[in-house]
Formats: sequence, C-alpha cells, structure tokens
Amino acid sequence: MKAAFYNSKGTITVDQGNIVKPGKGEVRLEVAYCGVCGTDVHIFHGVMDARVNPPQTIGHEASAVVAELGEGVTNVQVGDKVAVRPLRFGEAHPFDKGHKHVGKNLKFIGIDSQGAFQSSWTVPSYTLHKLPEGLSLMHGAFIEPLAVACHDVKIGRVKAGEHCLVIGGGPIGTLIAYVLKEKGAEVVISEVNETRLKMLGDLGFTTINPVKENLSERISELTNEAMIDCVFEVSGSAPGVQAMTEVVNVRGRIVMVAIHGGEQKPVDLFKFFWSEIELLGARLYEEDDYEEAIRIADSGTIPFEKLITKVDVLDNIQQVFDEIDQNSEGMKYLIQCN
Amino acid sequence: MKAAFYNSKGTITVDQGNIVKPGKGEVRLEVAYCGVCGTDVHIFHGVMDARVNPPQTIGHEASAVVAELGEGVTNVQVGDKVAVRPLRFGEAHPFDKGHKHVGKNLKFIGIDSQGAFQSSWTVPSYTLHKLPEGLSLMHGAFIEPLAVACHDVKIGRVKAGEHCLVIGGGPIGTLIAYVLKEKGAEVVISEVNETRLKMLGDLGFTTINPVKENLSERISELTNEAMIDCVFEVSGSAPGVQAMTEVVNVRGRIVMVAIHGGEQKPVDLFKFFWSEIELLGARLYEEDDYEEAIRIADSGTIPFEKLITKVDVLDNIQQVFDEIDQNSEGMKYLIQCN
Repeated sequence: MKAAFYNSKGTITVDQGNIVKPGKGEVRLEVAYCGVCGTDVHIFHGVMDARVNPPQTIGHEASAVVAELGEGVTNVQVGDKVAVRPLRFGEAHPFDKGHKHVGKNLKFIGIDSQGAFQSSWTVPSYTLHKLPEGLSLMHGAFIEPLAVACHDVKIGRVKAGEHCLVIGGGPIGTLIAYVLKEKGAEVVISEVNETRLKMLGDLGFTTINPVKENLSERISELTNEAMIDCVFEVSGSAPGVQAMTEVVNVRGRIVMVAIHGGEQKPVDLFKFFWSEIELLGARLYEEDDYEEAIRIADSGTIPFEKLITKVDVLDNIQQVFDEIDQNSEGMKYLIQCN
Repeated sequence: MKAAFYNSKGTITVDQGNIVKPGKGEVRLEVAYCGVCGTDVHIFHGVMDARVNPPQTIGHEASAVVAELGEGVTNVQVGDKVAVRPLRFGEAHPFDKGHKHVGKNLKFIGIDSQGAFQSSWTVPSYTLHKLPEGLSLMHGAFIEPLAVACHDVKIGRVKAGEHCLVIGGGPIGTLIAYVLKEKGAEVVISEVNETRLKMLGDLGFTTINPVKENLSERISELTNEAMIDCVFEVSGSAPGVQAMTEVVNVRGRIVMVAIHGGEQKPVDLFKFFWSEIELLGARLYEEDDYEEAIRIADSGTIPFEKLITKVDVLDNIQQVFDEIDQNSEGMKYLIQCN
C-alpha cells in the first residue's frame, strides 16, 4: 500500500506504507479522498515540526470505505462508507469539564499520529460516522471541514433571520456561510482577494471588500442600521479583529474561528462592556456537529463541485502542496488515496 | 433645598437648588444617602466634561423617600423607601434588539441629567424599586452598585460550586465576590493593594496578590488543577487582561466588568480558540438585577458597615471628593443628603 510522508519543510514523498492490523476497537479503512487543510500546509512549511514526528503521514479530512474490523467493533461493517472525526480522546482532566473534543489530553489524528494521506488507514472505531447512500465519497471528504463550520455556527447560537458577517472567505469561511444560509440567517462575507470575491459572488453570496469599501457603513446600509448579530472571525488578521467589534450590535456575538498565533493583537475591550457583546472561542467539533454536517451535505444545498479547485492522485501530492503554495486564491484541493 | 454642583475639574460646590415639581409619570424624592461611584470621581477629574453639562448635580447610587407623586403614578406611595435605577430609556433602535438598559438612546440619570447629590430629586417613577421594611436607607444606597454585581454574575451564568476569580478587589469587585458567595461559588480575589487585601482577608475572602505570588500557580493549587470557571475582570489593567485568559479553564467565561478606555490592550485570542473560552461584556443592570440586589441586601449576608469608609453630609461633599483622591485604599463613601 502507498503512503505519503511529510519529511521536512517543503518535502512530502510517496512510498510504500505498512498496513496496520486493526486492534481491539479499531477499524482499518481504505481511504477514498482526503482534503488538504490549512494545518497540513502549515506542517508542510515546517512550522509544526516540534509537534509532528517526521517522516509522518498527515491528512485528516478523509472519506473512506471500511476494510477490516478489529475485535469488538459493532458500529460499522466492512464496505460501509464513512467520514472520520480525527480525534483520539485521552484521559479526562478536571480542567476539561468533560469537553473531550478540546481536552488537555486530546490527540489529533493526522498531526499527533498517522493521518489519511495513505491508501490504508487504521483508526479507533468511535471516530467513524457512516455516510448516507446518496452522498459521494468525494463529497464525503468535505464532512470534516463542514463539521468545523457547523460547530462554529452552533457556538454562535445563530437563529433564522439574524444578520451574520463572515470575515474571511476561504474554504472554512465559505462553508460557515453555507451553514448560516441553511439556518435561515442573512449572510455577508468580507474578503480582500478579488478572485475569491468573484467566486463568492457567483455562488450567490453578498460580499464586501473592506479594502475598497467602508465595511461598517456598507453593513449599516445592508441591515438598516441593525448591524450584525453574529460575526465569524476567520481571517486571522489584525484588521479582522478590529472589524469584528466595529460591526456587532448590542448583545451581538463574535465567534473566534481563526487561529491567532504569534504576537497578541489589540482588541476593543471597551465595546465589549458598552454593548454587552460576546467573544466565543470555537475549535474542532463534537459528535453532533458531524451528524449535522452529514445531514446538510446530504441535503444537496452546498455545491461542493464549485468549491473543489483540484482533485489529484496520491502520487502527485508533492506537486499539489507546491501548487497550493503558489495559489492563494485556491479553495479545496482533494487527494484521491485509492 | 440644597444641591451639590460639579462646576469644573476638582470643584464641587453646595448651593441652593430648585425643587422640581414632578410631571406626569414622575416622582419627587427626598434623597437619603448617595454613594460616590468611580464614575463620579472621573467626572470630578474633569475627564467627562464633554458629556456632563456643568454646573451639574451628579450622583446616582441613591436611597430615598418618596415625597410627591406626579400624575398617573401608581407604583409607589408618599413615604415609601426606595432605591433608584438611574436609567432614562430613549426611543428603541434596531441596533439595541430590545435591550433598553444598553440602548443607543439610553440616558444615564446623574451623568446626562441631574443626579442625586441634592436633598430633593425628581425622577421617572419607573426608575424606583421599593426597599423592604428591614433594610436601612444607609444600606439602600448600596443597591445600585450591588445591582451591577448581580448583573455581572448573571451575565457570567455562575452556578453553585464553580470556581470564580475576581480580578480587582475594590467596591464593585468585593460586591461581585459577595454575590458569588451567595450563589454558592468558590471565590478568590486578586488584588495588589495590601490594605485592601488585609480588609478582604478579614472579611473572610481567599485573596492573592499577583505581584507577590504566581497567580496561575496559586489558582492551580487552590482548584486542584481545575482552574477558573468564571473570571470577573474588574481591574481595568493590562495585567488583569493577561491574567483573565491565563487562569480560565475549558469553556470558561470571562466577564468584562471594567471600562477599558484609551489605547486598546493586547488579548490572547489563541486561548479563546484553543479552550473555547468566552468573553462576556456586562454594563449596568436590568430590572431583575435590582430585585435580586434588594433580596440579597435584605438577607443580611453582606456586612455593608464594613464596606463603608465614611459617611458625611452634603455640605462636606468637596472634602469627601478630595479625600477619595488621596485614598486609593478606600471603599465606599456615602453622602447623607437630608
């Protein structure tokens, strides 16, 4: 069987991998498709070498077919189509208050252990969610990022009719926008890249380029001065952090989706006090977010085909990562692993 | 009748005031006691001259006795002891979503219009909350700041048994700590002033001086590594903003009580993402917070006498403000207005 290995900054090679016999409670999968996540690109850039253990197989946005069951597995059968929730739960810690998906001892499969960019992959059976008959394996690779979006919208407590702003129209921002639309919210996307803006406009979204227009004024017009009930900060940028507090109305919510690493950014804390706004951190997903993502994907409301920039085979994974580096406007790249 | 007038930076004089006949829906009060709030001190320092309109009577932490009813007033009777919720509601705005207490057109009585440092005060009847028989008028002057504390704890959704940290042990921080205790929470107060620390210790609170001890380590010891479920940032300081994210556990809440004006402070946004924490802005109070404050005050669990630094008569108000300026360790100063 074939497996891709991240070796060192900028290098990912395909080689012979080892088929891992599923142990008790484990399942061996034949991976169908695995999307390339921003985190995979960070790993490829060498910035996460302290956490990953090269040579390592990365990748975690996978759809797959069940190939072999370990002892005691009853939730899936050989031949089932599945999506994988790549979280390995560790020992409970009092700090976690039962929230296993962000617990102190959580391990992320595909970062902390072998991932999905390989033809055969062995994972705990509790990570698996069955895909409906009508959902293709290619679209099944979107369940992981779509579950992120479902989790973000759940954390934001968005109700039908509310005004929402997504700051950053990349893959996650776009999926959040689709989930919001599905909830009956009014959605605006703020994005600075003209190619992405064109694509989002073609998909039917209302967009604003905050470099060219005054974001707050445009939103005031669009909402008849009501402004935004729930903002999703997905850009990870300092201007995004400024915009998030400027546009939100009384008791409005801001969901912090982006990973703001590095130097701390200034935040308008006065606005939090003055308008009783909320900042809500969101990370990963829980079981119900996967079920919700599968339900929405199966409903056919998201045109996944239009969000796929390219599908390529495992053998070409190095070229795909190189291409992603050259193409800041790309959306989702999928690797076909079998 | 006598009234105190803030004239200009550092000057507050007592003079003859005008008795204002209560109009429709208004009530004339004989003010009993009015506490000096940090906001009054800011006004005294001249930093709010753009908002106040000198010479102006300030003060808003009042207890009073109903002296005269305007047309149509039915919620109180002459002779009733009351606390005043000093909010004048303006026209509803779509931005407010019905939250009148922080609405765009809200006017704060005692800042935007005449306040309580006078013997006779006329206010809308809807601002009045009757005090129970057993609660003294002196303690009734604590209802306003205690309602702030009740509002903060309500916004923080604190449950019995939770670990809470109050950053800043001044009057509001101390009242928050008492409300938390009343809810059955485990409370720790972080404070840097040694005199205040001594007083808080004498009141029975667990305290930490973060300048002398490592706050996170001490809290980890005190909570058996569970850390803090709900933090109240009352200090308004940059170290407070750093501490608030350091001590909070998974899905923990941070209530932003302090008014962080001036230059924006850096915030650890990564922690929001990583542990799905929440920052919740809190300002002023709603009707139910007043009712809760009156209930708690009447229950006798708060030793108000120990929180009073001084009570003085209206004629001495200039000296009282001058003394507050010299005494950063003081707690609550009350002005007797009749």
